[in-house]
Amino acid sequence: MGTKGKIIKCKAAVAWEAGKPLCIEEVEVAPPKAHEIRIRIIATALCHTDAHVINPKFKEAFFPVIPGHEGAGIVESIGPGVTNVKPGDKVIPLYTPQCRKCKFCLSPLTNICEKLSQVKHPIADQELMEDKTSRFTCKGKPIYHFMGISTFSQYTVVSDINLAKIDDDANLERVCLIGCGFSTGYGAAINTAKVTPGSTCAIFGLGGVGLSAVMGCKIAGASRIIAIDINSEKFTKAKALGATDCLNPRDLDKPIQEVIIELTNGGVDFALDCAGGPETMKATLDCTTVGWGSCTFIGVAPGDNGLNISPETLIMGRTINGSYFGGWKSIDSVPKLVTDYKNKKFDLDALVTHTLPFDKINEAFDLMNQGKSIRTILIF
Amino acid sequence: MGTKGKIIKCKAAVAWEAGKPLCIEEVEVAPPKAHEIRIRIIATALCHTDAHVINPKFKEAFFPVIPGHEGAGIVESIGPGVTNVKPGDKVIPLYTPQCRKCKFCLSPLTNICEKLSQVKHPIADQELMEDKTSRFTCKGKPIYHFMGISTFSQYTVVSDINLAKIDDDANLERVCLIGCGFSTGYGAAINTAKVTPGSTCAIFGLGGVGLSAVMGCKIAGASRIIAIDINSEKFTKAKALGATDCLNPRDLDKPIQEVIIELTNGGVDFALDCAGGPETMKATLDCTTVGWGSCTFIGVAPGDNGLNISPETLIMGRTINGSYFGGWKSIDSVPKLVTDYKNKKFDLDALVTHTLPFDKINEAFDLMNQGKSIRTILIF
Ligand SMILES: NC(=O)c1ccc[n+]([C@@H]2O[C@H](COP(=O)([O-])OP(=O)(O)OC[C@H]3O[C@@H](n4cnc5c(N)ncnc54)[C@H](O)[C@@H]3O)[C@@H](O)[C@H]2O)c1
Ligand SMILES: NC(=O)c1ccc[n+]([C@@H]2O[C@H](COP(=O)([O-])OP(=O)(O)OC[C@H]3O[C@@H](n4cnc5c(N)ncnc54)[C@H](O)[C@@H]3O)[C@@H](O)[C@H]2O)c1
Ligand SMILES: [Zn+2]
Ligand SMILES: [Zn+2]
Ligand SMILES: [Zn+2]
Ligand SMILES: [Zn+2]
Repeated sequence: MGTKGKIIKCKAAVAWEAGKPLCIEEVEVAPPKAHEIRIRIIATALCHTDAHVINPKFKEAFFPVIPGHEGAGIVESIGPGVTNVKPGDKVIPLYTPQCRKCKFCLSPLTNICEKLSQVKHPIADQELMEDKTSRFTCKGKPIYHFMGISTFSQYTVVSDINLAKIDDDANLERVCLIGCGFSTGYGAAINTAKVTPGSTCAIFGLGGVGLSAVMGCKIAGASRIIAIDINSEKFTKAKALGATDCLNPRDLDKPIQEVIIELTNGGVDFALDCAGGPETMKATLDCTTVGWGSCTFIGVAPGDNGLNISPETLIMGRTINGSYFGGWKSIDSVPKLVTDYKNKKFDLDALVTHTLPFDKINEAFDLMNQGKSIRTILIF
Repeated sequence: MGTKGKIIKCKAAVAWEAGKPLCIEEVEVAPPKAHEIRIRIIATALCHTDAHVINPKFKEAFFPVIPGHEGAGIVESIGPGVTNVKPGDKVIPLYTPQCRKCKFCLSPLTNICEKLSQVKHPIADQELMEDKTSRFTCKGKPIYHFMGISTFSQYTVVSDINLAKIDDDANLERVCLIGCGFSTGYGAAINTAKVTPGSTCAIFGLGGVGLSAVMGCKIAGASRIIAIDINSEKFTKAKALGATDCLNPRDLDKPIQEVIIELTNGGVDFALDCAGGPETMKATLDCTTVGWGSCTFIGVAPGDNGLNISPETLIMGRTINGSYFGGWKSIDSVPKLVTDYKNKKFDLDALVTHTLPFDKINEAFDLMNQGKSIRTILIF
């Protein structure tokens, strides 16, 4: 490999500060150190978390940063001690690490590796490599990594606990979605909420995450899937993927939770918030049934003040939990999800509404922010 | 039975209005109607919920009312259609009904019967019988029932889905505690939190409920049980029942949750709030570990503003739930718990600190409010 051991100059999208469009820059990507891998990113999608992190209301972010966490690529070179991949392997970078050694990785109860357990915010973490330095520089300045993987760069460096080797014949322009949005929504339904056959479900927010949650509910055998969005343009796709009812809170003359309670004669068994923010968090909890209603939080919102809960709501039999990367143990599960996609167990194609060259990344952000896309795939 | 079909005049403790001591009055107790049972209460204890309901800060209460919900007695007479008990049977009145017919009773997932599912507050409910009238009058005025059972009356009337027949040789002066406090704390640990062998637990509030939760954690095989109270006088008993560490938040120079996180190297597996109020709710949630920390709410507090939660707390792997009557399906479980007590599976005697004649009920409230008692048994 002609680039091995050398700094690579390549294209990346840098967020210099909050609230500004990303800048396409030439960046320098240092070679991987021990237990690190340098990856050539082939395709990356945008997730709403990439928009949150550059939102001025989100106070925990580090700048300047190269965002992006839903990508797929090919190993360019490996640092000393790397044994799980070799140059040329197809890989998905993983913002959820799996060290397989810590008490969390050794437990079947969680996918939160110890490396993540101390972060101050789950979407402002792993901003530096293990040695507390960055592999990126631009215009002479070090640039922060994002969630350990920074996929908005043609080359990126990740730790060997932050990537999964996948099938050689995987279609990188689709399986990049397994890096975040798809796995998050699908896993939140089947792993975290543990949706049961014949159950009723409500999904708030029908973006990449929410539509994948609809797929998860459908595959889990839910008999009724109520899909909620403030943008009715999302409903056609939601119905195609399994939603039985679609509701727009802005078209209703009473609170969405009341309408769902009436529709279901007391509330749903499972509700998942795939939008984020106090309003949908509250509606998600309130629309669940007494007795066994289960409420799962997936969405996050910058500047969110959280949700006020009374003990009575829970004492009447409800449970609230949350899902990070759909509860998947990342290195174990991502290769299997890639194979499942190949075997048509679920439909990633339905999530892709646009494909653009990487340079048009700000156009892709606009499409997302205006609610016109589900996922835009950016190709280097 | 000479009293069958007739109004019985007897002694009861009436709360005429919020914030006042109870008044011992002569009340009239009407005969049971269809599917109702009139019970002679032999012993009743006080639970903190009885104090909450007469607290002026608790806005949902009905007055005048006869409180009390932790009692045991003997069937005096039965109304038409009652088949599960006969006069002379020993019984425990149940504020958690079990109709065995509704979708909740038919599900293994909950102990919240449909009769409870629509109440505006779980401790201000079942204030009238099925026909929307009361069986109590005093000085010509109808008096509300409390939680369907009003055990602070020598005779009370309950629905046939609100009582359990128990062993003929049961000691009513002890098993009355199975009517609320013991079953609530013990069940919250084993049924709701589902404490696992070898786990670490934190119990906030060491009253009748909290000490029973300590017993539940111990019986479930927890290896570390951290017991927390603002009253250090509760610690001797907590240790005797299985607590491995006792902490008084008022003796610490940092927040209790930080101390627990340090003691346990990251937080406990299970935390149970048996005190109530936003402060202990917050500490209970905060002291649980990332990954799989489980937080169970049992306590309620009058005028409580609830707890503010951020989605990140949950996304990092925590679960919050709540427990009502310890998750026990009441009619199915209470007779078994009475037998378990007889077989010395757990220790109710440890919870009894005082025994007083019923007339001294306000003294019993004072003992509870001053933190001097765990449970006071009142004898008619
Ligand atoms: N927990 C995790 O691991 C994880 C992973 C990925 C994304 N996320 C979060 O999940 C959320 C969704 O991400 P996405 O990429 O699918 O976003 P997206 O932009 O593709 O979709 C969000 C959808 O929510 C809808 N919405 C917004 N406000 C709403 C409201 N009040 N009621 C109903 N619908 C509403 C929007 O119209 C949009 O269709 C974001 O908050 C993101 O940060 C969490
Ligand atoms: N969910 C249910 O089904 C259910 C059933 C019974 C009781 N309850 C509730 O459980 C709670 C406890 O009831 P109980 O009868 O055991 O009460 P109790 O008065 O016997 O004990 C409460 C204990 O909590 C302690 N405490 C108060 N504030 C505290 C704080 N900030 N930190 C730590 N400890 C604190 C007190 O010192 C006392 O020892 C009450 O809120 C009651 O209403 C709920
Ligand atoms: Zn994402
Ligand atoms: Zn790990
Ligand atoms: Zn009680
Ligand atoms: Zn029922």
